[in-house]
Amino acid sequence: MKTIYFDNAATTQMRNEVITSMTKIMQNDYGNPSSSHSFGRSSKSLIEQSRKTIANSLNVSAGEIVFTSGGTEADNLVIKSAVKDLKVTHIITSKIEHHAVLHTVQELETEHEVLVSYVNVNQNGDIDYSHLERLLQTEDKTLVSLMHINNEIGNILDIKRVAELCKSNKALFHSDAVQSVGHYKLDLQDIQVDFLAAAAHKFHGPKGVGFAFIRKNSGLRPIIIGGEQERGLRAGTESVHNIVGAEDALKHANNNLESEYSYIKDLKAYFIKTLKTNMPSVTFNGNSADLDKSTYTLINVCLPIPPKKAAMLLFQLDLKGIACSKGSACQSGSSQKSHVLSEILNEEDLEKPSIRFSFSIYNTKEEVDYVIDVLKEFVEQ
Amino acid sequence: MKTIYFDNAATTQMRNEVITSMTKIMQNDYGNPSSSHSFGRSSKSLIEQSRKTIANSLNVSAGEIVFTSGGTEADNLVIKSAVKDLKVTHIITSKIEHHAVLHTVQELETEHEVLVSYVNVNQNGDIDYSHLERLLQTEDKTLVSLMHINNEIGNILDIKRVAELCKSNKALFHSDAVQSVGHYKLDLQDIQVDFLAAAAHKFHGPKGVGFAFIRKNSGLRPIIIGGEQERGLRAGTESVHNIVGAEDALKHANNNLESEYSYIKDLKAYFIKTLKTNMPSVTFNGNSADLDKSTYTLINVCLPIPPKKAAMLLFQLDLKGIACSKGSACQSGSSQKSHVLSEILNEEDLEKPSIRFSFSIYNTKEEVDYVIDVLKEFVEQ
Repeated sequence: MKTIYFDNAATTQMRNEVITSMTKIMQNDYGNPSSSHSFGRSSKSLIEQSRKTIANSLNVSAGEIVFTSGGTEADNLVIKSAVKDLKVTHIITSKIEHHAVLHTVQELETEHEVLVSYVNVNQNGDIDYSHLERLLQTEDKTLVSLMHINNEIGNILDIKRVAELCKSNKALFHSDAVQSVGHYKLDLQDIQVDFLAAAAHKFHGPKGVGFAFIRKNSGLRPIIIGGEQERGLRAGTESVHNIVGAEDALKHANNNLESEYSYIKDLKAYFIKTLKTNMPSVTFNGNSADLDKSTYTLINVCLPIPPKKAAMLLFQLDLKGIACSKGSACQSGSSQKSHVLSEILNEEDLEKPSIRFSFSIYNTKEEVDYVIDVLKEFVEQ
Repeated sequence: MKTIYFDNAATTQMRNEVITSMTKIMQNDYGNPSSSHSFGRSSKSLIEQSRKTIANSLNVSAGEIVFTSGGTEADNLVIKSAVKDLKVTHIITSKIEHHAVLHTVQELETEHEVLVSYVNVNQNGDIDYSHLERLLQTEDKTLVSLMHINNEIGNILDIKRVAELCKSNKALFHSDAVQSVGHYKLDLQDIQVDFLAAAAHKFHGPKGVGFAFIRKNSGLRPIIIGGEQERGLRAGTESVHNIVGAEDALKHANNNLESEYSYIKDLKAYFIKTLKTNMPSVTFNGNSADLDKSTYTLINVCLPIPPKKAAMLLFQLDLKGIACSKGSACQSGSSQKSHVLSEILNEEDLEKPSIRFSFSIYNTKEEVDYVIDVLKEFVEQ
């Protein structure tokens, strides 16, 4: 059967070159990076090289990159330690963050009596910057956690503006950049975030590895305790092959950024145009149909289908070999509505089925045509 | 140059079969296990199959296995959540535990005012079971955390006896079994631990994956928060290839357990005998020279060398291509003395160099001969 993978915001197909280099590492470099003998030193040098490559790509120092088991752990590390060790008592976030941030903040609210403020979000899914500025007028030690690119609707935060707002109001700023690292060029000297989280499997790298950028002298402490790995910020034997895989994937992503950006953006534009032509009453959630205000990697489509029929939609698409998502992957098994769309849509639109299609270099216009044919047939039948 | 890897307690060479199956997964199964489409379901079914295999090998239910990024995270998950969510106020442990346990307990002592008791350890590195029994006479809600096999001296805890002591005194029992899973057959219906931690890279699997056994209805909650992965006990996209690698490595380890046990134990016996013959004044730390009371995978040797010369020993061995360790890998880069040996040796013996040699199926008697020749030459020169 034809299979089409349009769920690249959930996770991506790995690059062959990345698999090859990881396989080589697993075969040859099995030393523990904490061991002082030659086997250990060679593994250590591999992860330090990876750290350097990743740091360079963000224009930061190697010592500011801490490898984790993924984006979720990186978010947890930053947010929990900010409260526990930096004595943050006030967190400003939004209700459309990823659950790795939202649920962590909610736990801190319950268990550590942290004050949580949610910045307003308009019906397009954009942050209200003046509301954020008002929320920052406080004496409380504050951490702002806002994602760079929303994983469901693709909206792009003006991360530089938020960083400056935070700086001038003496607040710390963490950004979950899981959807942007490897897809956009980020210069963290220019963008003065304090912390940032990324995950390799979102840019054709392996699952189970990510990193936190933690600006120098932050005072953060580990949430996983034990050995002195990662300069004392994250205990546990490093997943050497995964770390090298993350490096490799980011290197390839950055080397090909411009051409891949054009290719995927073109695909997205084609999807929007073709869909509108074939189904004029379709609408798009958030800014996802605006090529300037949303990431080039995804669209979130609201289809004109009655609720009863809508229940069959994802099932039908799956039967036709089409992989896409009605929210983030973390929710797609459940029947819950997307917490992001619940924040921005009116009741009526929320009843209609919304589907996220997310793209990569491995997709083609032929796949777009096929998917739109299937959608059209389903809507019209 | 000849290279000899005698540091298998730090980490092990991966089995080729494991690398092959992981490579296949990375090539073909890139769906996010939380996605409901066919790509997602196929990844989900892979990790659920892995969970079942691992659970079966321990004679527990699949739902009692929680995949983590390794042994350290598994230890942290159990111990921290026991305090936070099960309201444990008293932890009994020993001063010769791995730092993943020891440092975590120390942090809980400082930050959560948990009472910490250290059970006495004799000069052989054995736990004083009657002291443990006395410590258990308490009204406090208690967690005992004692490792099954000590990673530095190889002593084997009577884990079944400790489990029974804990049960009859209404204490919870966690065991760091990082050095025993994959090396010994464990039946957790027979051994009534509540929690257990393991790491795949100690039994020829990949680095960056391990698991916690968490007995049903434990009440533990996640320390990494976000999505609902691992039945809500550990958020973050699963490292599918690593998890399948862990399963595969454990399957191979268990299938070959008897023959590999004999092979490695024979190697260890040969090392001890040949070393004693060549260097009669050598001594062995802990129970490591007692084939019944210590794991078959390691010895810890105290060499009759003056301190000044001792400083050069590891360096010399490394120059000769021999990888071994003076403690656990987590410390081997530092000049600190082993916290385990500091607990059990007298001042004089502590000044002498102690070296851990740890073995696997990939080692040979010829390697033992070579290492002992090098040691002898160094001691006599």
